[in-house]
Amino acid sequence: MSNQYRDPNLKIFSLNSNKALAEEIADVVGVNLGKCSVTRFSDGEIQINIEESIRGCDVYVIQSTSSPVNESLMELLIMVDALKRASASTINIVIPYYGYARQDRKARAREPITAKLVANLLETAGATRVITLDLHAPQIQGFFDIPIDHLMGVPILAEYFQKKNFSDDLVIVSPDHGGVTRARKMAERLKAPIAIIDKRRPKPNVAEVMNIVGNIEGKIAILIDDIIDTAGTITLAANALVENGAKEVYACCTHPVLSGPAMERIQNSSIKELVVTNSIALAEEKKTGKIVERSVAPLIGEAIIRVHERQSVSTLFD
Amino acid sequence: MSNQYRDPNLKIFSLNSNKALAEEIADVVGVNLGKCSVTRFSDGEIQINIEESIRGCDVYVIQSTSSPVNESLMELLIMVDALKRASASTINIVIPYYGYARQDRKARAREPITAKLVANLLETAGATRVITLDLHAPQIQGFFDIPIDHLMGVPILAEYFQKKNFSDDLVIVSPDHGGVTRARKMAERLKAPIAIIDKRRPKPNVAEVMNIVGNIEGKIAILIDDIIDTAGTITLAANALVENGAKEVYACCTHPVLSGPAMERIQNSSIKELVVTNSIALAEEKKTGKIVERSVAPLIGEAIIRVHERQSVSTLFD
Amino acid sequence: MSNQYRDPNLKIFSLNSNKALAEEIADVVGVNLGKCSVTRFSDGEIQINIEESIRGCDVYVIQSTSSPVNESLMELLIMVDALKRASASTINIVIPYYGYARQDRKARAREPITAKLVANLLETAGATRVITLDLHAPQIQGFFDIPIDHLMGVPILAEYFQKKNFSDDLVIVSPDHGGVTRARKMAERLKAPIAIIDKRRPKPNVAEVMNIVGNIEGKIAILIDDIIDTAGTITLAANALVENGAKEVYACCTHPVLSGPAMERIQNSSIKELVVTNSIALAEEKKTGKIVERSVAPLIGEAIIRVHERQSVSTLFD
Amino acid sequence: MSNQYRDPNLKIFSLNSNKALAEEIADVVGVNLGKCSVTRFSDGEIQINIEESIRGCDVYVIQSTSSPVNESLMELLIMVDALKRASASTINIVIPYYGYARQDRKARAREPITAKLVANLLETAGATRVITLDLHAPQIQGFFDIPIDHLMGVPILAEYFQKKNFSDDLVIVSPDHGGVTRARKMAERLKAPIAIIDKRRPKPNVAEVMNIVGNIEGKIAILIDDIIDTAGTITLAANALVENGAKEVYACCTHPVLSGPAMERIQNSSIKELVVTNSIALAEEKKTGKIVERSVAPLIGEAIIRVHERQSVSTLFD
Amino acid sequence: MSNQYRDPNLKIFSLNSNKALAEEIADVVGVNLGKCSVTRFSDGEIQINIEESIRGCDVYVIQSTSSPVNESLMELLIMVDALKRASASTINIVIPYYGYARQDRKARAREPITAKLVANLLETAGATRVITLDLHAPQIQGFFDIPIDHLMGVPILAEYFQKKNFSDDLVIVSPDHGGVTRARKMAERLKAPIAIIDKRRPKPNVAEVMNIVGNIEGKIAILIDDIIDTAGTITLAANALVENGAKEVYACCTHPVLSGPAMERIQNSSIKELVVTNSIALAEEKKTGKIVERSVAPLIGEAIIRVHERQSVSTLFD
Amino acid sequence: MSNQYRDPNLKIFSLNSNKALAEEIADVVGVNLGKCSVTRFSDGEIQINIEESIRGCDVYVIQSTSSPVNESLMELLIMVDALKRASASTINIVIPYYGYARQDRKARAREPITAKLVANLLETAGATRVITLDLHAPQIQGFFDIPIDHLMGVPILAEYFQKKNFSDDLVIVSPDHGGVTRARKMAERLKAPIAIIDKRRPKPNVAEVMNIVGNIEGKIAILIDDIIDTAGTITLAANALVENGAKEVYACCTHPVLSGPAMERIQNSSIKELVVTNSIALAEEKKTGKIVERSVAPLIGEAIIRVHERQSVSTLFD
Repeated sequence: MSNQYRDPNLKIFSLNSNKALAEEIADVVGVNLGKCSVTRFSDGEIQINIEESIRGCDVYVIQSTSSPVNESLMELLIMVDALKRASASTINIVIPYYGYARQDRKARAREPITAKLVANLLETAGATRVITLDLHAPQIQGFFDIPIDHLMGVPILAEYFQKKNFSDDLVIVSPDHGGVTRARKMAERLKAPIAIIDKRRPKPNVAEVMNIVGNIEGKIAILIDDIIDTAGTITLAANALVENGAKEVYACCTHPVLSGPAMERIQNSSIKELVVTNSIALAEEKKTGKIVERSVAPLIGEAIIRVHERQSVSTLFD
Repeated sequence: MSNQYRDPNLKIFSLNSNKALAEEIADVVGVNLGKCSVTRFSDGEIQINIEESIRGCDVYVIQSTSSPVNESLMELLIMVDALKRASASTINIVIPYYGYARQDRKARAREPITAKLVANLLETAGATRVITLDLHAPQIQGFFDIPIDHLMGVPILAEYFQKKNFSDDLVIVSPDHGGVTRARKMAERLKAPIAIIDKRRPKPNVAEVMNIVGNIEGKIAILIDDIIDTAGTITLAANALVENGAKEVYACCTHPVLSGPAMERIQNSSIKELVVTNSIALAEEKKTGKIVERSVAPLIGEAIIRVHERQSVSTLFD
Repeated sequence: MSNQYRDPNLKIFSLNSNKALAEEIADVVGVNLGKCSVTRFSDGEIQINIEESIRGCDVYVIQSTSSPVNESLMELLIMVDALKRASASTINIVIPYYGYARQDRKARAREPITAKLVANLLETAGATRVITLDLHAPQIQGFFDIPIDHLMGVPILAEYFQKKNFSDDLVIVSPDHGGVTRARKMAERLKAPIAIIDKRRPKPNVAEVMNIVGNIEGKIAILIDDIIDTAGTITLAANALVENGAKEVYACCTHPVLSGPAMERIQNSSIKELVVTNSIALAEEKKTGKIVERSVAPLIGEAIIRVHERQSVSTLFD
Repeated sequence: MSNQYRDPNLKIFSLNSNKALAEEIADVVGVNLGKCSVTRFSDGEIQINIEESIRGCDVYVIQSTSSPVNESLMELLIMVDALKRASASTINIVIPYYGYARQDRKARAREPITAKLVANLLETAGATRVITLDLHAPQIQGFFDIPIDHLMGVPILAEYFQKKNFSDDLVIVSPDHGGVTRARKMAERLKAPIAIIDKRRPKPNVAEVMNIVGNIEGKIAILIDDIIDTAGTITLAANALVENGAKEVYACCTHPVLSGPAMERIQNSSIKELVVTNSIALAEEKKTGKIVERSVAPLIGEAIIRVHERQSVSTLFD
Repeated sequence: MSNQYRDPNLKIFSLNSNKALAEEIADVVGVNLGKCSVTRFSDGEIQINIEESIRGCDVYVIQSTSSPVNESLMELLIMVDALKRASASTINIVIPYYGYARQDRKARAREPITAKLVANLLETAGATRVITLDLHAPQIQGFFDIPIDHLMGVPILAEYFQKKNFSDDLVIVSPDHGGVTRARKMAERLKAPIAIIDKRRPKPNVAEVMNIVGNIEGKIAILIDDIIDTAGTITLAANALVENGAKEVYACCTHPVLSGPAMERIQNSSIKELVVTNSIALAEEKKTGKIVERSVAPLIGEAIIRVHERQSVSTLFD
Repeated sequence: MSNQYRDPNLKIFSLNSNKALAEEIADVVGVNLGKCSVTRFSDGEIQINIEESIRGCDVYVIQSTSSPVNESLMELLIMVDALKRASASTINIVIPYYGYARQDRKARAREPITAKLVANLLETAGATRVITLDLHAPQIQGFFDIPIDHLMGVPILAEYFQKKNFSDDLVIVSPDHGGVTRARKMAERLKAPIAIIDKRRPKPNVAEVMNIVGNIEGKIAILIDDIIDTAGTITLAANALVENGAKEVYACCTHPVLSGPAMERIQNSSIKELVVTNSIALAEEKKTGKIVERSVAPLIGEAIIRVHERQSVSTLFD
């Protein structure tokens, strides 16, 4: 693709965590990815070469801080430092998946709040704006004092199911209590009721049960979460839904971390399809038949154009 | 009471929002409140006189940023500025109720994140530590980069009910989905099951219903929330519980904001007793028969002693 | 009025302290005020809704931090936070009256320097420029490290008297020693001599006297101050002038705080007219026959245009 | 003198601007001056050698930023940097005379506010506290966000005149309007009335006159100012006092800058004695018969002890 | 070993990069290592548990930012964040090997200065002091604004050779021009002359030659460098020395990075022994016969004690 | 010269250290120097008057921090403060010679790192970019967190010698080990070999010798250094070259500090010509026959244009 976007001062660079997504985003915007290489010295230190002038440019750096999370984060910090010293006009970091988001408070004594630390590190390095997607807790926006554009992945997931034109009744299910707001947003788009998996211990010394709140019998259930990591919760939920009479179970999430036993659990579960976004690059071996990937590139690309042209980004969600 | 605490460098000052609580805390610690006056000039500007030397002292300032919230907050900021310039060694702000906590994220376009702004203002003024109670979202801890000791009010509320030795079965009820963790902690202390009020619209274009999740029939229900402001949610919940067969309904919360129609709603509701803490000073006219107030002074006083003596504060909760 | 200013990136917003002045300023500049609402939640917390995109805009926020000073200041801080997070390009705060300006030094032990604290808070929130008028002490400019445009209200007050074409001799009187520079500037514009009220105790144990320095007999005296708060000094000065032979006494000030007994004192004093600016919005009941209000909107509007168009603001005073 | 102060962690260092005063202060405190040398390389760069460990110490650095002001200031900044990197516990800068204090506001377009810049530089270098004397404007205290102890030199000057036991009536005279507060404080200590030199142009196009406000005839007049630089104002004032009937004229100030024509003007003036402090080291050739020097070492030494022992410094002035 | 150091407020924690060294250092100081675990979640995020209270303590964290450098650095940053939030009094980071030190300047366009970025990140996280060893460039000390104690490893390496009591003449050889100062310090301790490997291209288009400056013939040569990474330079130098008549060749360095082909090159080279310190933990498979490891634990332990007891650290080198 | 550069927002100001160079740079860019005066008050304080509006402009301030270094540095800091407060858009400081660069690390206990302090002071004052030339250590770039354009003077010096078209063989000589990289760059441009002066003590208790590494016999030697201060090293080196058979000796450096005995030593040395740049203004009496001055104005002027037009500056060196 040749550069067609009208302002040569808009430059997009990709680091290593999600190059395919970055390519797609650049396509949406209408530019070629900026030339740079991010490699390792023999001892593992990161070496960054930015191979074109970015002096006075508005630079967008695409990097999910996904696994290997510490490598991805350090790449981003070093890139921001290099851009700052090379006189970029603005340094906009695009973090489709914000790692360490679940370490967002002190749950026990002497815990770090790593999600805040990461925000502080990025600001110290010189980032001037953040574009991100479906933060684990919306309060993480407040960890930054630079502007942050917080995009929503739910409509992309919803659209996939809308196109299926299910003939049976749907029900949107939150696998835990924290995800109900998310489930509601999905439900509104699919014009469906919601249900909740209420994993709890009804009385002391009684076994934990997967109680299902809401009517799911005979319906097609769609489980929704923001992050699926080891997939324990979501697969237990899916199985409980089937045991309790759901006709079919789909699952979806924005951020497919899918670490450790996740793939095996999903394969062995009652989940028929798991719809995810490409906020995190899936390894080829994870692209099994059950996994359906939807791209966030059109959403992020449009957001970059709006940021650059100083239009409202919030209208993306109207 | 005469000063009996052994270290004269520990000083406690009270501003105007909650003097009675401050007196109690000082009693627990074993000191007299520091001498200071916080008044208004004729045009409304705050005038602070600290009437004893605090040079080199570890100062604890007690101030809930409760209504009038902007006055309370400005008193605190100006006091911190005065203490910093007067060479206090450490400035520990004790905020039993942290106002603006519900403005903790951008829910819509162009919203402020006032809870983060307040944290930034307090650090700028010169605060070196925060001691607070039951923050609306635990992520607010991460809005600060100074140490924060986050105390829990639930055990105090639980103790009140434990002493009642109810003969009937109890059930702890969360009035919304966000409060389930809190309800669970209460339930563990009272060895009771939990239930949830699931206020939702089961399908589009169907009226919102107060669905009750869990078994409440014939039980004594205890509703728990962190903040009760206009009391709409909690009173509707209470009434729904009774309509659905609860034997009696109690309610409790840490922070009794009780603004606008709150008192009238509570009086007219099915709530038998509303148990609150004194994190916010109740106006005399609000101290009706239904309201039971439990003091957080022993908890906060003990925390101050532990902070001052460099002992673990987290062990307060074991 | 329809928007006629050529650059849509210049946006002016008004908060609650002085909406009439803000409307006038917007008229001068040739724009409509930006759409926003600043209301209170039931418990008194400030709620700000900015109802149009300001991404990439140069925003000017009009807000005197006048009574209720703490409410006005918090509105401003929260608005700045919202604008910063909404990606405003520059955030220019226009503070016609800068509250807390008289708390600009430690006069006694352990006093705050609230005027500096306020400057720090505004910079922390994210303000990038200040436009203000007749600061109580010019050193307050140095409390900021962002650019500050310090406008002068004296020429506006002078013009009012010039147009009267008094046939008698004038004398410009400073009601205390700190205001002599201000009186001089006024005197130069009116081509009149000056006098000073020297309130002092000539010897210990002798009563304080209102000594008048300079020749006022048979002249029309114009008292000038920057702030008139409770109006004690100015009304005593006016009466002393009459007792010592002044033919008529006028008074003027930039900032009519007029708190507490001010209006009654003025009504009962020898002051014939009190000329003020609208840097502080006067309550309707204060708009008595003695009060003459002159608008600073043309001055501030012109300053905003010059700032926006990167012209010298200092030439406004040549 | 041998070290006798009980805490070896209190260390006092002197730079080059006022070593004699530093020696005196060290004597008052009861310590030897810390060993350090401050020299120049061949090209004029400052070389600092601190010749004893100050790790963990509370260090007090004595340095007036007097002429050569830029050299003095850079010595202080570099010393603070060295102390910070050498792990001093606290770095207390003692600046008996604060240079650049008169550049404390923008009086004209595009002026620097050098007094604020200097405050920022000192905080950036690492100073943790300031002890200073009679700042030109008390608002300069607000230029710092670290604690500042602002001492008063007036009582020292007053004591000199008290001991003279003048048999004639005294009058304390301010040479301009800005100094009246200072004159009043002196007058209260000497139980004398005050007068003011009102240098002004009564009408346009009429020559400036030295008008004297207050009764001085037949009295012994004591002129007081904070800084005497080129001595124009003070000597014209003295001559006017004599011309208008004062019996004798004394003058005093805290900071004897005495630059340019100052010494010649004083010698040729009606001033009988000029009493100054040693906040600025006087060159030997300036120590003429008319100059009387009083030491601020006891005041500063006592302040250092109180700061170190965490006692109130404000009580020094009661 | 039982805790024997007298002050329980001194606590030493080890992260994962060099636990054996940390154990040794703790032994030298006379304390047990603090209880903490640093593990990985399933997705690779770092999880830190500090299992004892450190409130008010002076904490020393031992962590070389050696390979895997980004993991090691993130562990350190997160640990510092946790300690700050847990109210440590001081957070002293002990970094025996400072990774990324060779990225200390922009050698080409648009390069980062990662060594400075790392310093900024550590200060942002909350470190209050750095203790480190043989920085690649001494200017890196200036990248920090917190105190840094820069220890020297050369004496430890020198001592090893001194004890050999070589009967032949020694010569200390720098493998490149940047290391001559280091070679000189070693030479002074061993009372030996120095030589330099002058790898250069004498004229354009002529092959690079390993020119040896200084007399090495028949001598025992000791090559010294600060870091040996891929071992190319040092092994070529060793071979050149032998080819030019050196009797035997030893090599030494402070930081044995030994990445990629290093071990194979060393094995195949003329180096008889390579003496290194344990600033970087050597993998077991690298502990071959040629490698001699000397511990820096006594040096670092002594430095920690001196820092804690506020004694001069520089005297360690006298 | 009349202003011919197309963008009136680019403004160049000169302070006092190197006005002739500033004039030349302005000529290269095609603008007149901005109107400002930098004078001294009677007591030595710096007074800056910027006599034209710079609101919204990109300002370049030319000032070497050369002797008198502290005066030059304070002029620069105060100018930056004035520009910041006068609403300059960007403040680009052009420091052809960066004073204090040799104090770039702690070589002994309790030394300052003045080169870092200076960087901190400049950033605190408000500088937004640095343009400088041949820093003593390239790591000083990392002392700044604002962008720095580091220009190279070597090509200018090389060009002078190239034009001589020497018929004899050349050799480029570094007077010490630290300068070899610099010598190499020169050698590449002149297609010549290099040599090194190895001043060292071959064994303890043996006199220091000026050993010459490389073949110089019969050649024309060109000594190169970055700074020549007292000229001891360079003149000893020159003499040693002649004694060892060099045919002729030239010397060159970027920064001719030439303090103390420098001129006398050069005159008395074997140096035939000393080629320098005008990064430091040479006093007229130093412009002897041996000194050849080459201007860096074309280089700096071109860099300013490229920075202003957002083109790559690094391509200046390709």
